[in-house]
Amino acid sequence: MTNTQVTLVQIDNYGPWTVTPEPRREVDLQTLQSRLYADLSQLIGNRGGYVFFTRFDNMIAVTNGLDESDHAMIQESVGNRYPVTVSLSVATGTTPAHALADATDNLQDRGSAQDKDRREILCGRTIGEDHRTDEDVEIAHFDVIDATGEYTDRLSAFETFIEIEQGYATLMKEMHGEHDALSFFVGGDNVIAACPTLTEGAYLDAIDHVTEVAGVDLRVGVGSGKTAHEAGMDAKHALEEARASGDAVWFAE
Amino acid sequence: MTNTQVTLVQIDNYGPWTVTPEPRREVDLQTLQSRLYADLSQLIGNRGGYVFFTRFDNMIAVTNGLDESDHAMIQESVGNRYPVTVSLSVATGTTPAHALADATDNLQDRGSAQDKDRREILCGRTIGEDHRTDEDVEIAHFDVIDATGEYTDRLSAFETFIEIEQGYATLMKEMHGEHDALSFFVGGDNVIAACPTLTEGAYLDAIDHVTEVAGVDLRVGVGSGKTAHEAGMDAKHALEEARASGDAVWFAE
Amino acid sequence: MTNTQVTLVQIDNYGPWTVTPEPRREVDLQTLQSRLYADLSQLIGNRGGYVFFTRFDNMIAVTNGLDESDHAMIQESVGNRYPVTVSLSVATGTTPAHALADATDNLQDRGSAQDKDRREILCGRTIGEDHRTDEDVEIAHFDVIDATGEYTDRLSAFETFIEIEQGYATLMKEMHGEHDALSFFVGGDNVIAACPTLTEGAYLDAIDHVTEVAGVDLRVGVGSGKTAHEAGMDAKHALEEARASGDAVWFAE
Amino acid sequence: MTNTQVTLVQIDNYGPWTVTPEPRREVDLQTLQSRLYADLSQLIGNRGGYVFFTRFDNMIAVTNGLDESDHAMIQESVGNRYPVTVSLSVATGTTPAHALADATDNLQDRGSAQDKDRREILCGRTIGEDHRTDEDVEIAHFDVIDATGEYTDRLSAFETFIEIEQGYATLMKEMHGEHDALSFFVGGDNVIAACPTLTEGAYLDAIDHVTEVAGVDLRVGVGSGKTAHEAGMDAKHALEEARASGDAVWFAE
Repeated sequence: MTNTQVTLVQIDNYGPWTVTPEPRREVDLQTLQSRLYADLSQLIGNRGGYVFFTRFDNMIAVTNGLDESDHAMIQESVGNRYPVTVSLSVATGTTPAHALADATDNLQDRGSAQDKDRREILCGRTIGEDHRTDEDVEIAHFDVIDATGEYTDRLSAFETFIEIEQGYATLMKEMHGEHDALSFFVGGDNVIAACPTLTEGAYLDAIDHVTEVAGVDLRVGVGSGKTAHEAGMDAKHALEEARASGDAVWFAE
Repeated sequence: MTNTQVTLVQIDNYGPWTVTPEPRREVDLQTLQSRLYADLSQLIGNRGGYVFFTRFDNMIAVTNGLDESDHAMIQESVGNRYPVTVSLSVATGTTPAHALADATDNLQDRGSAQDKDRREILCGRTIGEDHRTDEDVEIAHFDVIDATGEYTDRLSAFETFIEIEQGYATLMKEMHGEHDALSFFVGGDNVIAACPTLTEGAYLDAIDHVTEVAGVDLRVGVGSGKTAHEAGMDAKHALEEARASGDAVWFAE
Repeated sequence: MTNTQVTLVQIDNYGPWTVTPEPRREVDLQTLQSRLYADLSQLIGNRGGYVFFTRFDNMIAVTNGLDESDHAMIQESVGNRYPVTVSLSVATGTTPAHALADATDNLQDRGSAQDKDRREILCGRTIGEDHRTDEDVEIAHFDVIDATGEYTDRLSAFETFIEIEQGYATLMKEMHGEHDALSFFVGGDNVIAACPTLTEGAYLDAIDHVTEVAGVDLRVGVGSGKTAHEAGMDAKHALEEARASGDAVWFAE
Repeated sequence: MTNTQVTLVQIDNYGPWTVTPEPRREVDLQTLQSRLYADLSQLIGNRGGYVFFTRFDNMIAVTNGLDESDHAMIQESVGNRYPVTVSLSVATGTTPAHALADATDNLQDRGSAQDKDRREILCGRTIGEDHRTDEDVEIAHFDVIDATGEYTDRLSAFETFIEIEQGYATLMKEMHGEHDALSFFVGGDNVIAACPTLTEGAYLDAIDHVTEVAGVDLRVGVGSGKTAHEAGMDAKHALEEARASGDAVWFAE
């Protein structure tokens, strides 16, 4: 059974900062946001975690393997190098959705995202080394069947983007509502989901739902491991197997 | 009347590269993609343009004010600093959607996005300095009314994200289908759209449609200018006015 | 005759910031400094200028082709994305050394580098478009003759570094004291100098001096142009010619 | 007694790459080099190590606390995100200079820095966890006494730079020749040295030598620890004590 450790990363009082004393250049905001995300990708990712850009001012990470001191160091490193600071709230649960709900609650209790006195909160508990197992994280890696042939090389770039986006919006809602999973668009035609332990049937249902509602055909590779990186790498290999075999769902062995 | 210059940025043969010789670490791909986007933000943005991350392997830019040599320099700079190369296709049109469709067509004619021999294409024509006007670009900046109070400080971080995402998926499809506009999520609760010249009624219709279908309440500030930066900065100020006044739509004067 | 436009970039009150409230992690300072330099390289470099890291908290740029509004945009962009701000002072002169001396004077008049109330100064005047010529900038690109065979592949990495460093320390002092030129180590075994119009004899003298004092054998390619980029690219090609021909000095035609 | 683990980072075949097929834009090379250094700072630094930019194409790191798998991950991450690759050679020794000499030898045995078939070498051995002690690393942090008052606020920016540079060139050679230490300029008026266990007298001698030869007055704080970060942070605090007390040398307790 999974035991996902989820960290909510929230830029402190970001909205007001972006328009104070007057609206800042959009390109600088975009650069700031995407570089902060890139840095967190390296800081979290090179310790075995995954972080997703989500809304950029609120990012969600799967952090099994990172302890409190890792979180503190990441927070300090951001504070040393950016004009903004981040709060980090970590929680664990049998499903990623529950873990994130707890992490959010905990942070909301410390004040509003736009409270100018709430800065650099670091709260919650990580999983002790003794309690970690090889099945703590389940990662599902989805992509669109023949996205290049069906869309990229045929439609206008925005029409393709609409298709991908409708597929993603449908999938992320379904996987959350039905399966307590957190699904993130990661570029191209790829969606990575942090899931609880799910059956093949659950994945098939989700894929069918997306085909029906959004008309986009997905396949998925699923892996599990002690960290997001391990589970995610297995999922990538499983997705390659699914592509080769033509199966809609493939579980890494 | 608008005369939007749109550039499609496509990473050459990116999908195959990400899994050759075997799947690359996801965190490195995320870092690569977001930094490439950040670099393009600076390169294009500091010449008055806007670029949107879209699918990351296919990015869309509004580039009024950048000529062919600017495009060539950007392409060369990326090639000098990344393990991947980009193709750039530029086109102009009375609506952003038409311009992008032409740019896409033109690039597709040169080969598939996954053709390993199609590298660093630079095609299309920019608007001559003499033909540029102060109304070439119209930018609409949407945000969600009281997103922090309604969502961020109340719901779990993923539930909030679902709401924002459903709102965006609905808006981007509606604005494209009905108004030939290209709308991009830019973080937080913000969507920036490159639009043709639209009436207040058109914006109100789009906002109503999103309320109805996705249950998310938007407002919008609209600006126009010679470049995306000028139009966008006006739109930001207009959005501040809309926020202060309580109006759903505000046009910069 | 050259007419070099030089910009001094100084991080405001940086020393105190690095130890407030207590010393910050060295790796974060190194990351901050080198990324700020990389950003300035892009911002200045993609407008035809060159910037050198120098002491990192004080950087020196050759900015022919950048006007006041370019400088203002660069200053604003840094302020939007870093926890520190920069002051910029620009001056022009018949020699790079005189221009820099004027730029420094001007900034010093506004307050100390460690004055906490002196922030984001932008002072000095750029060269009007009408007064620019194709000979405004002279760039000399030096490298060490057979550095890989003589040093890198033979000595320990630090012994090699000592040789390069002694050579550079000797060259930069000589070129400044004798020729009013500003010479910068740019990595590997390369030194790039912003020079006034110099004769072949002057370059030969400098090279001989370095051989004599530091025992390091240099060669140089020299180019001139309207911008640092143009002059520098000519200098690079000239250096390739010098390497091929065995000459110690080569002027681009 | 110290037991420093030193890693030599060498960009593979970099010189030829920078001029193939013809010389690349200098600003792109500068951006590439400084960002690669920034990335290594984060990758190595956030594991407790220190890396110094040195010649940029050859960087030197103190890597106590990083094992072979950390090195492999760093090498892979660079290869995934840059147009160039790096070789890493690690060695340990009772002095940093000996360790680096061994690391260099070992890499030179695998081929020339400009051998186009020698790519991504990973060689040498790290210190086993059981053999690590709290005194493995000694770091000395030097700065110039009243650099701002004596130089930055008085002389032209280049004259100041000349003074700092002559001081550094003298110190780095002396500390290597007399004390088997590796000293690196890290910006501003700061030099950080990886040292074997040295007496106060040794540091005083080095400081006197620099005053005599280069006319630059230094002070130094010294720390030791299990990692470069621990030793370096102690050295920073010791330097603050030296500044407050007026002593030329201060050892952290």
